Amino acid sequence: MMENQTSSSFPVVALLTDFGLRDGFVGAMKGVILSHAPTAKIVDISHVIEPFDVASAAFLLDWSVPYFPVGTVFQVVVDPGVGTQRDILVLEAFKRRFVFPDNGVISQVWSRVGENKQLVRATNRSLWLDAVSSTFHGRDIFAPLAAFLANGGDLDEIGPTIQQPGVLLPQPRCEFGDSHVQGEIVYIDRFCNLVTTIERGPLLTWIEEHNLNHRNVAIHVGSTKLRGIAGGYGDVAQGSPVAVFDGYDRLEIAVNQERADRSLGARIGDRVTVRAS
Amino acid sequence: MMENQTSSSFPVVALLTDFGLRDGFVGAMKGVILSHAPTAKIVDISHVIEPFDVASAAFLLDWSVPYFPVGTVFQVVVDPGVGTQRDILVLEAFKRRFVFPDNGVISQVWSRVGENKQLVRATNRSLWLDAVSSTFHGRDIFAPLAAFLANGGDLDEIGPTIQQPGVLLPQPRCEFGDSHVQGEIVYIDRFCNLVTTIERGPLLTWIEEHNLNHRNVAIHVGSTKLRGIAGGYGDVAQGSPVAVFDGYDRLEIAVNQERADRSLGARIGDRVTVRAS
Amino acid sequence: MMENQTSSSFPVVALLTDFGLRDGFVGAMKGVILSHAPTAKIVDISHVIEPFDVASAAFLLDWSVPYFPVGTVFQVVVDPGVGTQRDILVLEAFKRRFVFPDNGVISQVWSRVGENKQLVRATNRSLWLDAVSSTFHGRDIFAPLAAFLANGGDLDEIGPTIQQPGVLLPQPRCEFGDSHVQGEIVYIDRFCNLVTTIERGPLLTWIEEHNLNHRNVAIHVGSTKLRGIAGGYGDVAQGSPVAVFDGYDRLEIAVNQERADRSLGARIGDRVTVRAS
Repeated sequence: MMENQTSSSFPVVALLTDFGLRDGFVGAMKGVILSHAPTAKIVDISHVIEPFDVASAAFLLDWSVPYFPVGTVFQVVVDPGVGTQRDILVLEAFKRRFVFPDNGVISQVWSRVGENKQLVRATNRSLWLDAVSSTFHGRDIFAPLAAFLANGGDLDEIGPTIQQPGVLLPQPRCEFGDSHVQGEIVYIDRFCNLVTTIERGPLLTWIEEHNLNHRNVAIHVGSTKLRGIAGGYGDVAQGSPVAVFDGYDRLEIAVNQERADRSLGARIGDRVTVRAS
Repeated sequence: MMENQTSSSFPVVALLTDFGLRDGFVGAMKGVILSHAPTAKIVDISHVIEPFDVASAAFLLDWSVPYFPVGTVFQVVVDPGVGTQRDILVLEAFKRRFVFPDNGVISQVWSRVGENKQLVRATNRSLWLDAVSSTFHGRDIFAPLAAFLANGGDLDEIGPTIQQPGVLLPQPRCEFGDSHVQGEIVYIDRFCNLVTTIERGPLLTWIEEHNLNHRNVAIHVGSTKLRGIAGGYGDVAQGSPVAVFDGYDRLEIAVNQERADRSLGARIGDRVTVRAS
Repeated sequence: MMENQTSSSFPVVALLTDFGLRDGFVGAMKGVILSHAPTAKIVDISHVIEPFDVASAAFLLDWSVPYFPVGTVFQVVVDPGVGTQRDILVLEAFKRRFVFPDNGVISQVWSRVGENKQLVRATNRSLWLDAVSSTFHGRDIFAPLAAFLANGGDLDEIGPTIQQPGVLLPQPRCEFGDSHVQGEIVYIDRFCNLVTTIERGPLLTWIEEHNLNHRNVAIHVGSTKLRGIAGGYGDVAQGSPVAVFDGYDRLEIAVNQERADRSLGARIGDRVTVRAS
């Protein structure tokens, strides 16, 4: 994690939801945050991931954390269980705070935390809006909690400390072995390209240590075998699959000018293997 | 309306337009606001409602108001009449201010105002940009007026007080009768679900008072009759209609994984009735 | 260019990218900016232009500049060459600063600059993030440079002064002749309407000077000839082409409720001519 300069005068609240941009839900949430934390600087991570796609939110959240300032409050509302008995949790770790439903969306962040953390369950209703609907906890509970944290509020006031989240998703795998690298698809981007767990730096090190290069490795996904890591999507013909390093600095499988998920029949969790070709 | 804490140091300007996000129009408007009100905090309600859909904007505006801080300036530019002789109006009510075209977009907010209000017609051109185009009043007139208001400017400087808007849309109906509740479709969301005027709290009260429950009420929309209010869209088969409470805390008619407006042939203004089934 | 009031306390950073809104790239960039310039006010111009569409970005940037406050830092990341040897440049002109790849995106702004400017090549890596990826310079180089500039940093610290960009696109033409006005298509908006280089004010002057009016001019684009400039798209039948003045205050060619680019087989750079009809 990066250590950045922080400004408690202008705390950052970073939002990640599946609310879409059309129907005013994000705006209402921001209105509530600014009602209670007038100096907060609100930043959107995304509001247009697929509805209820907890796994994708877990990836985007984890990837985003180090680029936001120390002191940032992350408010995550990808919450298929709104209105049910699922808990709302608050985590402090990495000198940042996270407000999120207990549905696994914190899984990837949680896998990195060490001893220096606190996790609480939100039970103190005096910190929520007076009227809490059954359908929009993002506005009525998450947003006032984010504002409370942005104002420097303490986790102990939010509710009791717990030892770990109730729901954790299986951790996306990435193993560097002797004969091969075993990763999986962890995210599918807006072009339907397949982002893997295999990070560029470690993969290049592994390739070098095995006296290989980016041209003579083979990448396997499902029944598809790709030879080499290209410099860009355009290095192959239209409709052909290609492996590249992407904006997440991961190995990514695309199909030039087509939807890789459909063309290759691939989905989140599918294995991706790198070997000598 | 909620009473929130306000901060005149960082006034909020909330934007609601049909400009889309692609073509730079929203950015230019924000640039003008920040040119004249450098400390303003600008929040987007929506920019992607259907072009010229004044009725939907009227709903979103009215629904959003209480969640924004006291002192917020709402700038609404859904303005099919730009370049014609339609007036631009400014309303102060609910300790907030509204800049909007006189085309009915203020109708639902206006229906709630009491005596404690002021409405003016924008005529003082010295508050506008020096060069006013015929095609982009959002940037050239609305934005500088919003900045003027964010800076604490007085309505009397903007233009003469008038008694009421020139254009008001028919008020969406919601009547709780002895034998039935009569509402109508007031908004169609991004998934094409049908949002009604029937609010959750009053409906649950009416149901209880009539010794009914959420399972033995019937909801009629067009020729479709639904039995019961479900806990979620997934309670019915794909392609089947379903009534739920939604993020607006309203009774909503959806068709599971389909477009309810098309499947049911429904549109804004259509009647929705709740009875004993 | 307008002279606006500025606020060095809350510097504006205006972003123009082709990153889309879904995948978290814009958020990560904003996180980096706020990590290093905590008081910056970040405004989006657009993130949803077509990927790699440098020409459209060049138009939107140039059109947006005068509406943003003096002191604004424009960060443009439409950058097909990321990871190659293309330079990153910083321009100071019009009392504003611009961070951009040397791929022609600055062309239209550059065509307007006079003597009072400075252009540098970004070479001082101590101003970038410590770890620079090969795939996301927007986050790792452009964003920290924008923050440095927002904090009042000096161009001389960024790198050596150069005389002009390495890559400049052909300047979009607009010539007012005796017998005709010769322009071209410079941008295609979200509705696929064709925005031209022909500005409203100069065209109306030319029309008046030639004893014409908006009804008896002919507009030629490809093999299509339009008669007169309409008051709105709806002045013609559905599917018919129409010329109007648009939100950019330019002459625009649309096809009522259809995609003008497809219907007319037109693209950016195509000639548009106005004559007496």
